Amino acid sequence: MSKFILTLSIIFYSNIGFSNKIFTEDFIKKVEQLRDFAKTDNTAYKLAESLTTEVGHRLGGSSNDIKGVNWAVSKFNELGFDKVYTEPVIFKKWVRGLEQAEVVSPFPQPLKITALGRSFPTTDEGITAEIVHFQTFEDLEKAEDSKVKDKIVFISNRMERQKDGSGYGKANTARYKSAYVTAQKGGVGTIIRSIGTDYHSRNPHTGAMMASITDELTGETHNLTEHELVPAGAISNPDADLLVNMLKRNKPIKIKMTLLSHWGEEYTSQNVIGEITGREKPEEVVVIGGHLDSWDLGTGAIDDASGCAITMATAKLIKDAGIKPYRTIRVVLWANEEYGLDGAKAYAQAHENDMQNHIIAAESDFGAAPIYALSSGVSVDSLAVVKIMAKLLEPLGIIYEGNTGKYGPDIIPLKKNGIATMGLRQDGTNYFDLHHTADDTFDKIAPEEMAQNVAAWIVFVSLAAEYKGNFGYNHK
Amino acid sequence: MSKFILTLSIIFYSNIGFSNKIFTEDFIKKVEQLRDFAKTDNTAYKLAESLTTEVGHRLGGSSNDIKGVNWAVSKFNELGFDKVYTEPVIFKKWVRGLEQAEVVSPFPQPLKITALGRSFPTTDEGITAEIVHFQTFEDLEKAEDSKVKDKIVFISNRMERQKDGSGYGKANTARYKSAYVTAQKGGVGTIIRSIGTDYHSRNPHTGAMMASITDELTGETHNLTEHELVPAGAISNPDADLLVNMLKRNKPIKIKMTLLSHWGEEYTSQNVIGEITGREKPEEVVVIGGHLDSWDLGTGAIDDASGCAITMATAKLIKDAGIKPYRTIRVVLWANEEYGLDGAKAYAQAHENDMQNHIIAAESDFGAAPIYALSSGVSVDSLAVVKIMAKLLEPLGIIYEGNTGKYGPDIIPLKKNGIATMGLRQDGTNYFDLHHTADDTFDKIAPEEMAQNVAAWIVFVSLAAEYKGNFGYNHK
Repeated sequence: MSKFILTLSIIFYSNIGFSNKIFTEDFIKKVEQLRDFAKTDNTAYKLAESLTTEVGHRLGGSSNDIKGVNWAVSKFNELGFDKVYTEPVIFKKWVRGLEQAEVVSPFPQPLKITALGRSFPTTDEGITAEIVHFQTFEDLEKAEDSKVKDKIVFISNRMERQKDGSGYGKANTARYKSAYVTAQKGGVGTIIRSIGTDYHSRNPHTGAMMASITDELTGETHNLTEHELVPAGAISNPDADLLVNMLKRNKPIKIKMTLLSHWGEEYTSQNVIGEITGREKPEEVVVIGGHLDSWDLGTGAIDDASGCAITMATAKLIKDAGIKPYRTIRVVLWANEEYGLDGAKAYAQAHENDMQNHIIAAESDFGAAPIYALSSGVSVDSLAVVKIMAKLLEPLGIIYEGNTGKYGPDIIPLKKNGIATMGLRQDGTNYFDLHHTADDTFDKIAPEEMAQNVAAWIVFVSLAAEYKGNFGYNHK
Repeated sequence: MSKFILTLSIIFYSNIGFSNKIFTEDFIKKVEQLRDFAKTDNTAYKLAESLTTEVGHRLGGSSNDIKGVNWAVSKFNELGFDKVYTEPVIFKKWVRGLEQAEVVSPFPQPLKITALGRSFPTTDEGITAEIVHFQTFEDLEKAEDSKVKDKIVFISNRMERQKDGSGYGKANTARYKSAYVTAQKGGVGTIIRSIGTDYHSRNPHTGAMMASITDELTGETHNLTEHELVPAGAISNPDADLLVNMLKRNKPIKIKMTLLSHWGEEYTSQNVIGEITGREKPEEVVVIGGHLDSWDLGTGAIDDASGCAITMATAKLIKDAGIKPYRTIRVVLWANEEYGLDGAKAYAQAHENDMQNHIIAAESDFGAAPIYALSSGVSVDSLAVVKIMAKLLEPLGIIYEGNTGKYGPDIIPLKKNGIATMGLRQDGTNYFDLHHTADDTFDKIAPEEMAQNVAAWIVFVSLAAEYKGNFGYNHK
């Protein structure tokens, strides 16, 4: 049965036609060889091991932030990149403090909690209040103020497991907005069920919450104060189940929570950039990368040492194979994606006068599981080259899903500037078991899966950097 | 294929013969009906939910110990047991304190650690020392003292996953004895890789270590002092991997660990006992049960709220079905199994003068996964009744593995007294993913698997309590 399908798909792809006028046969052959070599190469795996072992987490603004930057600069140099430099990224840092919660009555039990990123602290003594339970964020929104007043809001909605990770955005509203809505209704704190798909792990998932609102009419942004947001944390999935079971007893449940994470002073981090210089158009760039920062509960292995390692290895292997690209391959390791997208914003600002030289941009920021689909976000007249990419990706088990325009978070500011994008979509079925938890550690990465990623990125990057046309600018 | 095997096994069992003179046909029919009813009954599941939700962990000697005892007494009464009582269990309590560890140099990183049960504390400031790595406990034993002196010993051996849990005993020597051997060689602390099969969970596994030694010649037991044992903890599997990766850099690794768990004063807990009184021989008992205590990191759901719930539900369903047994069914919920086997020892002592009335004993203490095999530990002349049990267990997917004499830990003192035993062997493939960790919570129990356990126990207990012979006493 599967053999039959395979045969059909080969016939289908043969129809796309492989003798093309865009690339030389010799070039395509080289790319194929490198792709196949990469499938068993461990350059990326070793990079991810190095970053997570020698540095550990890289929370933006923490003492590990600069260690990550120094690691990246020296690794780019060690790998033989043609040009290595940094660009400053300034942001207000958020500092994790003590985080504790417990059911005080009627069934005293400790809870595993973590503060949501960008949340304000409780007092040192913590807050103790009865909880009011909502199954979803929408239920909280609809609730009368009187139901929420002086209470700790608990939202128990569980994220759905999906290959494309689409359960995340849906569930995430609770993390993002609940502290704001709770404050508006007179509540004193918010506890959400972790946004994660694990049932197994008693580790809460952190992640950023809303820190500002933008006026629809004026477009002005207002940073929310601690009078407009209540202290907020996420409890582990098993603890959320426990609370739900306690609630079935129909007795008032009182919780004490102490969350001392808080905003700190301004901090200057760096985007770290390594380039393989183009042979004919060095000023034109294919931008790839991952974010160098991570949350601090684990070691940021799948989020996003993996993306940094995959894209660094891609450029390094292309250089080592002697494929001198037509234009420059620029690997950007973005700073503080997690609670600000600050590196991405700073990059777009620093490069606002040479946006037209940004031919296409792509980020790896979804772990290290295999890539299963290619999503382009390019002009219609450059689809021919995308189809060649798709054909070369086919032996890796990757399908072309269309010009669907999927891309990573650090690409958002570039996309706003009209840059073409590419999405190499990874299997996210298990990603949210680990995402933003203490469980995000190096042992979760499978070397052969990471190598498949590099092989796929080699195809995309080699062709994008060699393609003499462009992928459309402001094409919408 | 599987249909073929099924047919064969039916033929095989038919040969054992089912028309027996031990039980009436009517009785067997009732047991079969109850067994089938139990497969979808949730009595046990609800009991485990109640204990873990309303009490949480039950660490021996902690403030939750007495809550567990009170819960059990009132549940036995609520379930309609004929007789409910407690028997005192006195032991020295061990109190968990602060537990922290970190790599200080060359790659500062926090580690997830938990103190081993019965370990002595470090000073409040913790200890900082270079680590010396051994792959196995045997390597530590063989090492020169000079290699260990003033160091923290790190043992990285990983437990093997096995259906019968046999990887545990093998790996566990490292947990049990390393602190003693380290002290003998002049080391200052011990860190072991958690004895667990998970790779996924960044939660360390606690568990007891050796606290005394017995002189082979005199038989005298000596309680080890803090001069004979170093402070000892277990780090999570991902953290052990991290250390192993750091060690590959061939640089000295310095660790700081602060473990403030310590022994406390004497405490009196209780074995809680519920009985269904026998109709003809009330003084003769079939002893079943689980241990009421648990470690404190999770809520002791699989270890051993499950065993308590399964055996309580078994007796309750037998009573409710109107199967009035020939002799008494006694459900014992033992105190402080985890770091002393104190409940089991106290029970054997309290009943030393009526051991001959203990017809057979069995414990459920291996989680809530399905039972796959029956192991008897009985005299040869009572094997006929075991074969009838085996036949009635067959529809539950349970095989008879023979007179192999497997039993739970709380049965050890009874076995020493010559009591016959039964082992209803549960699938332990995933048990050690959760065992002794914060992950041991109610959400891990599958109701239909737990119900299969109760159905199987109903078969064993009904027949054992009705069988007019005995299972051998001091049969060896």
